[in-house]
Amino acid sequence: MPSGKLQVVPLGGLGEFGMNCMAIRWGDDIIVIDAGLMFPEAELLGVDIVVPDLSYLIENRAHVRAVILTHGHEDHIGALPWLLSEFNVPVYGTEFTLAYVEGKLEEHALLDDAELNEIKAGERFKVGPFTINPIQVTHSLVDCVALAIHTPLGTIIHTGDFKVDPTPTDNRLFDLHAFAEYGKEGVLALFQDSTNVERRGYTPSERAVRARFQEIFARAERRLFISCFSSSIHRIKLAIDQAAENGRKVALVGRSMIESTEIAQDLGYIDVPEGLLIHPAQMRDLPPDKVCVLISGTQGEPMSALSRAAVDSHKHARIQPGDTVVLSSRIIPGNEKAIYRVVDHLFRRDAHVIYEDGSTPPVHVSGHASQEELKLIINLVKPQYFIPIHGEYRQLKLHAELATAMHGSVGKVMMIESGDILEFDELGARKAGKINVGRVCIDSNSMGDVVEDLVIRDRRHLSEDGIVLPIIAINKVTGQVEASPEIVMRGFGAGLTDDGFVDGARRTVMSTLELSSDEEKGDYGMIKEKIRQDLKRFIVKNTSRRPLIMPVILDV
Amino acid sequence: MPSGKLQVVPLGGLGEFGMNCMAIRWGDDIIVIDAGLMFPEAELLGVDIVVPDLSYLIENRAHVRAVILTHGHEDHIGALPWLLSEFNVPVYGTEFTLAYVEGKLEEHALLDDAELNEIKAGERFKVGPFTINPIQVTHSLVDCVALAIHTPLGTIIHTGDFKVDPTPTDNRLFDLHAFAEYGKEGVLALFQDSTNVERRGYTPSERAVRARFQEIFARAERRLFISCFSSSIHRIKLAIDQAAENGRKVALVGRSMIESTEIAQDLGYIDVPEGLLIHPAQMRDLPPDKVCVLISGTQGEPMSALSRAAVDSHKHARIQPGDTVVLSSRIIPGNEKAIYRVVDHLFRRDAHVIYEDGSTPPVHVSGHASQEELKLIINLVKPQYFIPIHGEYRQLKLHAELATAMHGSVGKVMMIESGDILEFDELGARKAGKINVGRVCIDSNSMGDVVEDLVIRDRRHLSEDGIVLPIIAINKVTGQVEASPEIVMRGFGAGLTDDGFVDGARRTVMSTLELSSDEEKGDYGMIKEKIRQDLKRFIVKNTSRRPLIMPVILDV
Repeated sequence: MPSGKLQVVPLGGLGEFGMNCMAIRWGDDIIVIDAGLMFPEAELLGVDIVVPDLSYLIENRAHVRAVILTHGHEDHIGALPWLLSEFNVPVYGTEFTLAYVEGKLEEHALLDDAELNEIKAGERFKVGPFTINPIQVTHSLVDCVALAIHTPLGTIIHTGDFKVDPTPTDNRLFDLHAFAEYGKEGVLALFQDSTNVERRGYTPSERAVRARFQEIFARAERRLFISCFSSSIHRIKLAIDQAAENGRKVALVGRSMIESTEIAQDLGYIDVPEGLLIHPAQMRDLPPDKVCVLISGTQGEPMSALSRAAVDSHKHARIQPGDTVVLSSRIIPGNEKAIYRVVDHLFRRDAHVIYEDGSTPPVHVSGHASQEELKLIINLVKPQYFIPIHGEYRQLKLHAELATAMHGSVGKVMMIESGDILEFDELGARKAGKINVGRVCIDSNSMGDVVEDLVIRDRRHLSEDGIVLPIIAINKVTGQVEASPEIVMRGFGAGLTDDGFVDGARRTVMSTLELSSDEEKGDYGMIKEKIRQDLKRFIVKNTSRRPLIMPVILDV
Repeated sequence: MPSGKLQVVPLGGLGEFGMNCMAIRWGDDIIVIDAGLMFPEAELLGVDIVVPDLSYLIENRAHVRAVILTHGHEDHIGALPWLLSEFNVPVYGTEFTLAYVEGKLEEHALLDDAELNEIKAGERFKVGPFTINPIQVTHSLVDCVALAIHTPLGTIIHTGDFKVDPTPTDNRLFDLHAFAEYGKEGVLALFQDSTNVERRGYTPSERAVRARFQEIFARAERRLFISCFSSSIHRIKLAIDQAAENGRKVALVGRSMIESTEIAQDLGYIDVPEGLLIHPAQMRDLPPDKVCVLISGTQGEPMSALSRAAVDSHKHARIQPGDTVVLSSRIIPGNEKAIYRVVDHLFRRDAHVIYEDGSTPPVHVSGHASQEELKLIINLVKPQYFIPIHGEYRQLKLHAELATAMHGSVGKVMMIESGDILEFDELGARKAGKINVGRVCIDSNSMGDVVEDLVIRDRRHLSEDGIVLPIIAINKVTGQVEASPEIVMRGFGAGLTDDGFVDGARRTVMSTLELSSDEEKGDYGMIKEKIRQDLKRFIVKNTSRRPLIMPVILDV
């Protein structure tokens, strides 16, 4: 065994939900696995997205050889534009993952300079001292891989996100054999996804949803709206197949839904019969029972297509009495209120709303492995060291406890968190210090379709761009605005806080309110986001500054 | 049938979660069923509680004859102090419900003038033209009743909150016979709790939790902390019985837990063996396996006993490695983040944490009827009119759909929401207009144990007491405060916003931050609440004003 130290350094995702990113270092060579974002907590009003603090990589930029992606979800690729704008290194990912990455980099004008390398499950490639073998796994997205990384000290396996789905809709099976072979050869360390460690048993196959969709399509008498994550390619495929079988045309509504479906079509994951897709404007020319709408906004995101359709403010998608609306996704904790607000709006329009309520067949299944699947992989891999990844502290801890009980399969279980340096050498493994990690807030600044620079919002520098708090008093029941909005500012240059500017800001807020329906005004999440967007546009235009904008609604 | 109109007017709770309150009117006589509060949404920072707008009752104060309470939960009695401070009318409730009411009225110095009338299940009483028969029902609380109200037009039944528990821990059975008899006699209208209409089947009996508690007590090797709602008398009884059987002393931690257990003991619901209860300070003198702690704070409320114990800031309750902590309650949607923050803190202290994860026997069961129970009551009562109550819009709608399908039992289903006037006369029932309803925010202003006046915060009058926004930049990972706090104010009198006041406010926030641990500072919910309370004390003391205080945390 060569003398030297292998370091594994999670920069995010261990002890928190999202922003998965992990550095692996041997001597002067670093590879990075995934570069994900996190959606901000409600407490972080005024922020679009959150990415991991990459100072460790920036300080070591001369040594970073590549970023290797396990799959295309935002919590694994969403921080890539920021990372590449700091240091441009080669990116490795599967065909489908790279298709998502391309769109993302193009948005930020980073695509031309990027070096994207397509990898294929089972085809090994070398980066510095590492030989990497992507292993096909199943998940809610397609073309996902785990990574077996051959290092001078032995092989380590990073599972990425996975479930063990015996019947994936694309028939590309989870490669149990690869895990089994590594287990026979000997594996130094297994880093395994902890997301669903609290769930007993097995996660049902994606195919379980098909039975429910069949039922729903058979019963729907008028228009059928199906909302799922735009990256749920399996789900989109199920819906499109059912629509074709049941004689319904399909309209795609919502930018992410359209883009995602296009990519999946281009790459052969979804086979859309000629003439099945219609433009959303064509809906009104078809009988209601001949229409199926795939619509984005399953988490009640305030400005999403579904949220707007639910309050009649979408151009094409309107809910009519007797329509069926299916939320084919889980309710992410923290989003209940927003989601149930949308559901209430739909019920008020006399729609049939179908959402996850524990009934079977399920209208949604998870993409992450439950306890029995986690144990299966541990039994196959038999690692010397086991390290839980991807989870909040309680999940990592429960996963560690689960593995500790598996004496026959696991050597030693190590618990690390983001920032910990886990060091391996010929004597074993240990925590060897900490690096600086943290969260960086980003103003994604997506105004329309214009390509703009990435704006990293270092919130320490409040004094530079300041903070603007529009305060609005709304009667929740009537949606009536009770007084003229107040505009509170801090940290703005003196020249900008004159009366003219404040008046303009106030008029902007007033005009947003006037252009919103009572229902929209009664939906605080939605009206806050509308005010924030409109006010941002006004402020950037008039001051070219980018303050944090945090609308405050007073319920009167 | 006498000619005249019976009006049923919900003031809250229909189309929203909480603040249940319903007026029933015949001519010039009004009775009010329940007067509950609602806990504010996260969007309403700076507010303690929310109560229904009672203007309809205030305008008709000469006609209001009584408030009749179905049970003692906050969403049914929490607005009573406000109602009674507006117009003092007789209150009717069962013995246990009135015990809760007494404590509440005493806090607000309203008890001496209140006229409280104890009612008993099965004993009819008259208020104006109404004869009211309380019917014993089962629920998560004890001594709960439904109300059969005999009106000149016929009998209407209001279920209150209920489940049909065949084996309640106090052996006081759900009075199926009373419902059956009313069904035979004929019922004009049934108003039924919709809370759990989304759940199939039957809600398990409270006794199902006993099996889980037995398991937990058998396995716990060190201290055992059990957290549940302080009003979960059944649950407290189960825990105390198990502690006695297993040789553990019981310490009660948290004011609400202590008060609630005392009331339950006084009224004979809980039988505590002599010498079983200890003062929390005595814990340290006992071996860890001889201690059971009943502790409040099951929803991760920032300043609750459990939240403080979880970060070592509680005087007596400290979590040690190997302790077991049981969250015997449901995770109320919207509270996940706060609850999981507490769970994470507990895991970091190497506690075994047991919470609702779908496993059986359950560590918690609901107090509300599932679909089969709802249908059972409908089949027994066979009402001419069925009206769903207690639920958000989607739940009322689903409940209406459930009842509509029961052609053999239900005449007509009516959907009404808070503010609608539902009118009955000899020709039938119809919606007959609307009254003004809404939400009123209250600053409960509980500083220590001092009895204070109720402060109704009419948020329209921002200009009177103003708004104060302390803005603090905290590094979530390290808990470090990155800059001096900013104090933003609006609507404060000029004399108060001088530098001395702002400096004092800033110093107050600084001192709160200095006295908090890094872990507390990393827990935004908790640090916000601490800042809010300390700053409120400072401002009331120095200005005797009561602005809204909304801490803004910037994550850096």
